[in-house]
Amino acid sequence: MSTDLNHKSEQIHAKKMGQNGIVQPLLTDLYQITMAYAYWKAGKTEANAVFDLFFRKNPFHGEFTIFAGLEECLKFLEKFCYSHSDIEYIKHILPASIEPEFYEYLGSLTAKDIKVYAIEEGTVVFPRVPLLRVEGPLIVAQLLETTLLTLVNYASLMATNAARYRMAAGKLKLFEFGLRRAQGPDGGLSASKYSYIGGFDGTSNVLAGKLFNIPVKGTHAHSYVTSFSDFSELTERELQPKNGGFPKNLLELAVHFRKRLVSIFSVLLSEVNDGELAAFVSFALAFPENFMALVDTYDVKKSGLINFCATALALHELGYKAVGIRLDSGDLAYLSVVGRTYFKKVQEEYGIPYFSSLMIMASNDINEETILSLNEQGHCIDSFGIGTHLVTCQKQPALGCVYKMVELDGQLKIKLSQDVEKVTIPGKKDAYRLFGEAGFALIDILQKSEEDAPSINQKVLCRHPFQESKRAFVKPSKVTKLHVLCFDKGNICQPLKNLQEIRKNVEDSLKILRPDIKRNLNPTPYKVSVSDNLYNFLHTLWLQNAPIGELS
Amino acid sequence: MSTDLNHKSEQIHAKKMGQNGIVQPLLTDLYQITMAYAYWKAGKTEANAVFDLFFRKNPFHGEFTIFAGLEECLKFLEKFCYSHSDIEYIKHILPASIEPEFYEYLGSLTAKDIKVYAIEEGTVVFPRVPLLRVEGPLIVAQLLETTLLTLVNYASLMATNAARYRMAAGKLKLFEFGLRRAQGPDGGLSASKYSYIGGFDGTSNVLAGKLFNIPVKGTHAHSYVTSFSDFSELTERELQPKNGGFPKNLLELAVHFRKRLVSIFSVLLSEVNDGELAAFVSFALAFPENFMALVDTYDVKKSGLINFCATALALHELGYKAVGIRLDSGDLAYLSVVGRTYFKKVQEEYGIPYFSSLMIMASNDINEETILSLNEQGHCIDSFGIGTHLVTCQKQPALGCVYKMVELDGQLKIKLSQDVEKVTIPGKKDAYRLFGEAGFALIDILQKSEEDAPSINQKVLCRHPFQESKRAFVKPSKVTKLHVLCFDKGNICQPLKNLQEIRKNVEDSLKILRPDIKRNLNPTPYKVSVSDNLYNFLHTLWLQNAPIGELS
Repeated sequence: MSTDLNHKSEQIHAKKMGQNGIVQPLLTDLYQITMAYAYWKAGKTEANAVFDLFFRKNPFHGEFTIFAGLEECLKFLEKFCYSHSDIEYIKHILPASIEPEFYEYLGSLTAKDIKVYAIEEGTVVFPRVPLLRVEGPLIVAQLLETTLLTLVNYASLMATNAARYRMAAGKLKLFEFGLRRAQGPDGGLSASKYSYIGGFDGTSNVLAGKLFNIPVKGTHAHSYVTSFSDFSELTERELQPKNGGFPKNLLELAVHFRKRLVSIFSVLLSEVNDGELAAFVSFALAFPENFMALVDTYDVKKSGLINFCATALALHELGYKAVGIRLDSGDLAYLSVVGRTYFKKVQEEYGIPYFSSLMIMASNDINEETILSLNEQGHCIDSFGIGTHLVTCQKQPALGCVYKMVELDGQLKIKLSQDVEKVTIPGKKDAYRLFGEAGFALIDILQKSEEDAPSINQKVLCRHPFQESKRAFVKPSKVTKLHVLCFDKGNICQPLKNLQEIRKNVEDSLKILRPDIKRNLNPTPYKVSVSDNLYNFLHTLWLQNAPIGELS
Repeated sequence: MSTDLNHKSEQIHAKKMGQNGIVQPLLTDLYQITMAYAYWKAGKTEANAVFDLFFRKNPFHGEFTIFAGLEECLKFLEKFCYSHSDIEYIKHILPASIEPEFYEYLGSLTAKDIKVYAIEEGTVVFPRVPLLRVEGPLIVAQLLETTLLTLVNYASLMATNAARYRMAAGKLKLFEFGLRRAQGPDGGLSASKYSYIGGFDGTSNVLAGKLFNIPVKGTHAHSYVTSFSDFSELTERELQPKNGGFPKNLLELAVHFRKRLVSIFSVLLSEVNDGELAAFVSFALAFPENFMALVDTYDVKKSGLINFCATALALHELGYKAVGIRLDSGDLAYLSVVGRTYFKKVQEEYGIPYFSSLMIMASNDINEETILSLNEQGHCIDSFGIGTHLVTCQKQPALGCVYKMVELDGQLKIKLSQDVEKVTIPGKKDAYRLFGEAGFALIDILQKSEEDAPSINQKVLCRHPFQESKRAFVKPSKVTKLHVLCFDKGNICQPLKNLQEIRKNVEDSLKILRPDIKRNLNPTPYKVSVSDNLYNFLHTLWLQNAPIGELS
């Protein structure tokens, strides 16, 4: 069963998606609240802070990431406010020595003085470039940390994972089937949403379809097939032909076709399961226009394909066109080729033109590598249903986004670390993407906010943030500014895009990347640089903050 | 900051936890609904079905699993019912040919005729033993599949993961710090809840604390430390001694102690960061009774530990006792030993008895293997804060629970597969756990429901379900029946246990397992058997269902 809500979207008044009720200010780490009290005690609540939310490494051994989760962050900011019961709970868990005025203060906090600059949702992004820049009173900016990270981390990971599957699968259809294996109910819903953004064609998750206006897909399970043991269980057997007329006995027709099919495909009739045919016929009676059958409950070659073809031929006799089959076990490449061979043979024998192109869907434990390997082997699969590996991001189940203070009351902040990759780039920064003649993105550059934007056809010195000798002049043929102000004065100040638009943005955004950056095996890293000005600044501050030791 | 809600639970009227609003009948795969229609068309809706929910393989290369998620399943069943808007949405996505009476029928469905037999939540369980047995009208039992799997899969995986960390950590304290890296907001909440059940001592997740009455823990982040550059930013400096009297300047005291500490520990004063001391002092002013400091923002040995000891000594001077430190980077084993050495030295120099046993918490990218390796190296850590690896179950992010029809209208159902491990054990079964003299569980046995329960001190023939020659007589000194009726006539019919009770059940349940089954490296598999009667039954049915092929 398949639906395309794009076509029908006028017909239904799609319910505007609110936000899951558990996304609320208490969905945070306790230390944010203890820090808030300490800031309050120290009189630092109003200090103007700048935080960068970014990641340090692309996931899945790849060299790109898709940014997602922005809309959820903005909705959270809009309603950010501690309820009376939240304050009561916080009182209960903090020490009795806390001054009561703090709770009054906390109860009055909102995000109205917070500004959020963000990269557009669905854009391809790279390590160290801030996805969000959060500016405003220290106490509020700090209190937002955990929730923003929670909302961005999995969303971006999932969208990236889906985009990788999409690239592996090329033009084939992809459906997300992972709800039952997802990390909790919300994990399942987010997986449906962000895999659609990343390029999937739909989901099996009905609630995701309802809430997010995503196409929903599904046929039947093995249990449907095993629920029938023989023909006698099929009490209803009649189907009216598509163009009217007297109903005919669909089972009788299918049994009739099956007799010839077993001889065409050299199968013993005793090997073909009757319960399976009863199940297929009953399903076809329910969905004559959308008949799709799971053919691997017993034996694909000796039973499933025979019973499917018999039922599809019976439907054809009454003017209906079957959709296809699903394979959920075994050697998918091989079985899909067998399936296609059967369909072609039936087409020849019966002269039914559409038969050779019936859909073949595969859905057993598929991951990105399976698809790539199936492509190499050669197969006849038209669409994939993908579960566990996709929704849990099995290859790497977490994206390591962090939220670091880079400026406070105009004072630049740097977080040093023995590990150079973990040093933060201080200060309020703008990011630009520089494009070459071929239309591909060449490099991202971070600059101090007060610097002028790079200009088209003007040489820009781009420096590696940590390696002095790595630098290059770039003469961009196009420059895009990556951040826009999305939240200001308590309101979302950019129009929210719908999922289809964000999905389109992912598709377009990936086109600007050179293929070698996107490939699965040994991809080329995309470069993220800093301006000469920011480079010098960063390293001066670094030396100031790193104390000189004494060898002993 | 730490709270133990067990002590305070009378003080607060803990809000009864409802269920996340997204747990609803549409949180399912579309094919459940298409199958429902086909069943309805075929007149099979009322057929009495029995489904088993079980898994085939223990996670994490281990040999046990903790069953969790039952309460969520039961709450879902209690309210199972399609809303008007659900029905409208289903109409919208199914073909126009669906008979309208079906939607009326669907709208009237509830789980009132469903019976659920389940193993107690928090019990140690093994492959192939049903966690839930769902009995009732085929259509409803089928419609429940995906949601039940979603609710059991991650909950059990998470509880199992936590129990493994608990065993690795022995008596040390364990805190879940993973919200920011969890798979969605609900993934984060579930992680807090089920890690507590599995043996963790608390979480950083405030909402989890509020909703589930779990102890919450947290101090401060690196950003708190970097927000202070020098002493001048510390406007408030006075603290009243614990036993009253005039407030004293805590910064001055700390600076005073620091002078001597740098010479005791042979550090240059210029290497000790002043911003860090300002941050520690301000935090101590806010939480004099609960002072815990993150000591790795700059240099643990040359700055963090010196500033912590200086602040703790200053607090001591005013009658307060510091809690300890947190390490979030570097060589945790080594740094914890260094920290303990510092504390012991300070104890000797200043004669403060509690100083050597101040708490040392570690929290950087820790997993089960890290803990085991730290144990081997030797360390002085008292507690761990664990995030990503715990909450995403990085080692294996999904448990493969399945939901299989085993009986329909008294007819036994078997699902065959080329892969013997995937063959389902047919029929309505009861499960018993047989214990040996030493009090350890010896084996689980599945029997046909109509068979008599095994008796104490009577020989029982236990057979491997698939290998004819593997069988053994067992004379149990104790027998427990694993399933109890939990849901009947539309109601939960067992008292729901609170998290503390379920947590206790996990602890007790793990004690009945021999240590070699629980160990991390090459654990011994626990045996799950079938009765002789069920064995014969299974294999007769298998032969009946497996068609005889012809070699060609």
